[in-house]
Amino acid sequence: MKVTALAGGVGGAKLLVGLQRAVAGSGELAAVVNTGDDAIVYGLHVSPDVDIVTYWLAGVADTERGWGLSGDTFEVVDALGRLGADDWFRLGDRDMATCIYRTDRLRAGATLTAVADEIRRRLQVPTRVLPMSDDPVRTTIACADGRVLDFQEWFVRERCAPEVSDVRFTGMPDATASPGVLDALSDADVVVLCPSNPIVSIGPIVSLPGVRDALREHPRVVAVSPLINGVPLKGPADKLMLAAGLDVSATGVAASYADLCDAFVLDAADHTAPGDVEALGMSVMKTNTIMSTHDASEALARRILEP
Amino acid sequence: MKVTALAGGVGGAKLLVGLQRAVAGSGELAAVVNTGDDAIVYGLHVSPDVDIVTYWLAGVADTERGWGLSGDTFEVVDALGRLGADDWFRLGDRDMATCIYRTDRLRAGATLTAVADEIRRRLQVPTRVLPMSDDPVRTTIACADGRVLDFQEWFVRERCAPEVSDVRFTGMPDATASPGVLDALSDADVVVLCPSNPIVSIGPIVSLPGVRDALREHPRVVAVSPLINGVPLKGPADKLMLAAGLDVSATGVAASYADLCDAFVLDAADHTAPGDVEALGMSVMKTNTIMSTHDASEALARRILEP
Repeated sequence: MKVTALAGGVGGAKLLVGLQRAVAGSGELAAVVNTGDDAIVYGLHVSPDVDIVTYWLAGVADTERGWGLSGDTFEVVDALGRLGADDWFRLGDRDMATCIYRTDRLRAGATLTAVADEIRRRLQVPTRVLPMSDDPVRTTIACADGRVLDFQEWFVRERCAPEVSDVRFTGMPDATASPGVLDALSDADVVVLCPSNPIVSIGPIVSLPGVRDALREHPRVVAVSPLINGVPLKGPADKLMLAAGLDVSATGVAASYADLCDAFVLDAADHTAPGDVEALGMSVMKTNTIMSTHDASEALARRILEP
Repeated sequence: MKVTALAGGVGGAKLLVGLQRAVAGSGELAAVVNTGDDAIVYGLHVSPDVDIVTYWLAGVADTERGWGLSGDTFEVVDALGRLGADDWFRLGDRDMATCIYRTDRLRAGATLTAVADEIRRRLQVPTRVLPMSDDPVRTTIACADGRVLDFQEWFVRERCAPEVSDVRFTGMPDATASPGVLDALSDADVVVLCPSNPIVSIGPIVSLPGVRDALREHPRVVAVSPLINGVPLKGPADKLMLAAGLDVSATGVAASYADLCDAFVLDAADHTAPGDVEALGMSVMKTNTIMSTHDASEALARRILEP
């Protein structure tokens, strides 16, 4: 079985771990990962979603904190702060090594796709990790106070506090899906939209030319709600959905995926009436979506992949 | 009293510590530092001599090992190695932060001189640290086996093993002394040539247009021999002097400085006949030049600065 999953940060990474376990030995998994959160920090090319996905799949992520590497240290960023650099982006030392490596390889002419593949192979990740695009797409947050912030400025530096008036994907008109992404979608038996932020994680991926059409045409696309009873398990999906004029609920997520999805997974504890989602033209599965352990992730993955 | 000292690596850094102590409260010290050893490593701009001088002057150098920062860790370089990067250049984590900071500032349009000044001020170094040039000058080693290596490749990766047939300063014809260097020389009451490698540390500095002339015209230039009885305390001065056709001795160093220097410091234990150096047109001082403590460095500095 060939599975392709679209993912952003931690929620996506957790389901990918489950999918990787579920297909082990009997199938292939490709992860198409958002790069709209990418940023240049300390002059280094940071790909937060690509890295967090890779670290989770490699079993080296800090699963408590959610981001970065387990047991990482912070000598470099602390030293940068002492030198007067803006040190609000707290990259760990080994995490920074990934970014130094990526930046050096990009400068030598490698693509984001090639570098992500080098890194996942070095970390012995069997899943293919595909950045959504090799072109620069940058998610920017237009704030109600008039400021336009890079996503990481809004998300990390300002801790999602400024009210959002609009979300923009700078560079999107000139971007194309990265090599292999469209193939991974058309080759897949199942496409999974991970329980990632629908606006800033899945949103940029499906905005790339060809991706939305590929999903529309695909016979089996399953999305997992990142909201349970209107509340995201992690991250600012609620604030961003509100700004996008969506209903902040599983039904609101399903509505935004209505033309893409064939099936939608609601958490077992979600009070959403399945009929509200079914009315959008997709079937509904109810199951536990809280991935507090790798076993829970695998159980959810197996449920999604059931024929 | 205004003192300007030309320096390269550890030997120079040690004497600079002594000079900084000697002028404290009653004078000014400027260090003109070799940048021929600069390299791009992991995509980062490494300035080994500028950094080692700054770290020693800030009291944060690893004085046992000679290079890098006291108590530094090696998380990043180890992680880079695991990612498949060539990791023979063992930058510590905090040392790497300096290089990340420099690279980012240079890319933003700052000069090497401006960045070095920012770093030394952040580290509360009272001495001005002046990179010799803002232009790229790269010391390269032509080997007897036909290879042409960057200095760090020969020095660090190959541990000075390949026999040297020639030393070249790539970029020198287009380089100029950095802003402030020529002023620091003409303003100084005393110019000191530190006991640094005469070929690859002092050599590049005095090869810059205007520097040699400034030293020739200066009334008081004092050099300290980096060799004692023909042996360098540290580093490959002997091999490089041999390749340059110089006598590997204090007299050989003095001969290479003959047109620049007014006085020459021999170590108390050196068997060189003072008359051999005096015959080159400079006065001779004999004193302890082994700077095993900061107090020893200061004593040597005070001796040099005596009228």
